[in-house]
Amino acid sequence: MTATRLGGAEPAAIVRAEVTERAAWLRAAGRPPLLAIVTATDDDASAWYVRSIATAAGKAGIDCDVVDLGSAATAAEIGGRLTELSADAAVTGLMLQTPLPPRVALADVAAAIDPDKDVDGANPLSLGRLAAGLPAFAPATAAAVVALLDHHGIELAGRHAVVVGRSTVVGKPLAHLLLDRDATVTVCHSRTADLAAVTSTADVLVAAAGRTRLIGPDHVRPGAVVVDVGTNPTADGGLAGDVDPAVEGVAAALSPVPGGVGPVTTALLLQNVVRPMLD
Amino acid sequence: MTATRLGGAEPAAIVRAEVTERAAWLRAAGRPPLLAIVTATDDDASAWYVRSIATAAGKAGIDCDVVDLGSAATAAEIGGRLTELSADAAVTGLMLQTPLPPRVALADVAAAIDPDKDVDGANPLSLGRLAAGLPAFAPATAAAVVALLDHHGIELAGRHAVVVGRSTVVGKPLAHLLLDRDATVTVCHSRTADLAAVTSTADVLVAAAGRTRLIGPDHVRPGAVVVDVGTNPTADGGLAGDVDPAVEGVAAALSPVPGGVGPVTTALLLQNVVRPMLD
Repeated sequence: MTATRLGGAEPAAIVRAEVTERAAWLRAAGRPPLLAIVTATDDDASAWYVRSIATAAGKAGIDCDVVDLGSAATAAEIGGRLTELSADAAVTGLMLQTPLPPRVALADVAAAIDPDKDVDGANPLSLGRLAAGLPAFAPATAAAVVALLDHHGIELAGRHAVVVGRSTVVGKPLAHLLLDRDATVTVCHSRTADLAAVTSTADVLVAAAGRTRLIGPDHVRPGAVVVDVGTNPTADGGLAGDVDPAVEGVAAALSPVPGGVGPVTTALLLQNVVRPMLD
Repeated sequence: MTATRLGGAEPAAIVRAEVTERAAWLRAAGRPPLLAIVTATDDDASAWYVRSIATAAGKAGIDCDVVDLGSAATAAEIGGRLTELSADAAVTGLMLQTPLPPRVALADVAAAIDPDKDVDGANPLSLGRLAAGLPAFAPATAAAVVALLDHHGIELAGRHAVVVGRSTVVGKPLAHLLLDRDATVTVCHSRTADLAAVTSTADVLVAAAGRTRLIGPDHVRPGAVVVDVGTNPTADGGLAGDVDPAVEGVAAALSPVPGGVGPVTTALLLQNVVRPMLD
C-alpha cells in the first residue's frame, strides 16, 4: 500500500483566496485588516516563521506589524504590550509568537490578548470557550488538522481519533475540536505506557509530540489516516515530521511535512484576522 | 470476583473536617466564609441538592445564601445577579445551580462569575485555565472523581482512563484533570461507534453519561477500576448510577451510587469556598 498524500497546498490556496477577497472588501470599507505579531525571542526558526506569516499576510492584503520585544523581555513587558495592542482599534488580529523567554508562560501572558482579536487562540479564555462549545478562535494549528481532514473528505463522526501530544497549543484544543465533530478521542503523551498499543487502535492518528520520527509503521493500524503536525528542525536546515516516512507503506493516507498541516495553519491564521468579530 | 467498594463517605469526612477547621479560623479572623448559590429552576432534584449543600455548609461553619430567581429568569437577570454577587466582598464562593431555564446556556451566563469565587468551575475561563495548567477551580464533580481514586490508592500515571460523557461540567474537565495526572485519556460519548470495545480497554473507567445502567459487565475489562458519576432519579425517588450493579462481578473496584462520588463532590465544593484565593 502507498498512502494517499494529504497535501495542504490546495486547501490553503482555497482559504487564502477567500481571505484575500474579504481583506479587499474590508479595506474598501475603511477597515483595513491588521495583524500584530509580538515576538520575544532570538530563535531563528521563529523569526523565519514570523517572516513567512508577514509575507503571506501581505499577499492577502493584510497589513502586518511585527513587534519585537527582544529575548530579555519580562512577562510584565509582554503582557503590557499585548494589553496596549488589544486596546488599539487599528489592530484586528493579535498573536504572540513562541518560544517565549525563560520563566514566561504563554498561557499566563496570553490572558492579556483580547479574545476578539486572539487569532491564534492563545488566551486561556479562548480555550475554555472552545471546550465549552462557545464561539472562540481555536489555535490555528489545531484547526488546520481538522480543515485538512475535511478537505480530503476524511470522516470524523463516530471514528476513533488518537492525538499524540497534550500541549496547550495543539493537543488539548485539537481534542476538543475532534470531540465537537463527534469523534471518540484519545490523548497520549510521553507518559503513555505502551504508545504503539494505543496508537494502533486509531482510525485517525494525529502526531503532535514534537519528536522526530516518533511514529513508525508499528504504531499505525493498516488503513489508518495519519496527520503529521511535527515540524522538527533537521541538521541540514530542513523540517522533519513526527512520523517516519515508512508509515506510507501502512497508512491509507498521510499528510507530508513540509506541505501538509503547515500551509493550512498559516491560511487559517489569516482567515481569523478577517473573520467577523465573535458574539 | 466481587469488586472493592470505592466509598466516598470516608474521604468526604476527612475533607469536611479540614474545611470546618479552616472555616472557624476564617470566622475568627473576621472573614466568615459565605457561599452564594443562584438557582433558576423548579426542579425537585435540584432543590433537594441545594438544600443538602446548604445543610453541609452550615455544619462546616460556612454561611450559605440561596438566591432563587425562579424558572422564568432570563439570561440577563441571571448574569446580572452573578455579576452583583461577584462584586460583593462578603461572598467568598459563588455557584450557579443547574438546570437553567430553556435558552439559557450555563457557559454563557457563568462567564459573569468571578473566577476567584467560581467554586464549581463553571466560568469558561476556569475551564481554560484548568486546561492550560494554570491555577483554577475545577468543577467539584470532576475533582471528586480524582480525589476518590486518590483516597483509595488507585494509580493514574501511565494508565488508560476512559471517560464516558463529554459534558462541560464533568467529562471535559475530568479529561484535563486525568491528563494532568499523566493518565492516557479517552473520551467516549453517545456517538461512539462501539462503546463496549472502547470501554473494555480502560484500566480506569469513569461513567458520566447520565444514562441509567449504560455500563454493563460487557463494557468492563476484568480487573478494571470503575467510577460511577451517574445520579439518575429512579421511579421510587431514589438514585441510580450509570453502572449496572452486575459490574461488581467483573471490576476490581467500583464506586457506589449513592455514597461514592456524591459526598466527595459536596465536600470539595465547600473546600473551594474556604480555599485561599487563587493567584
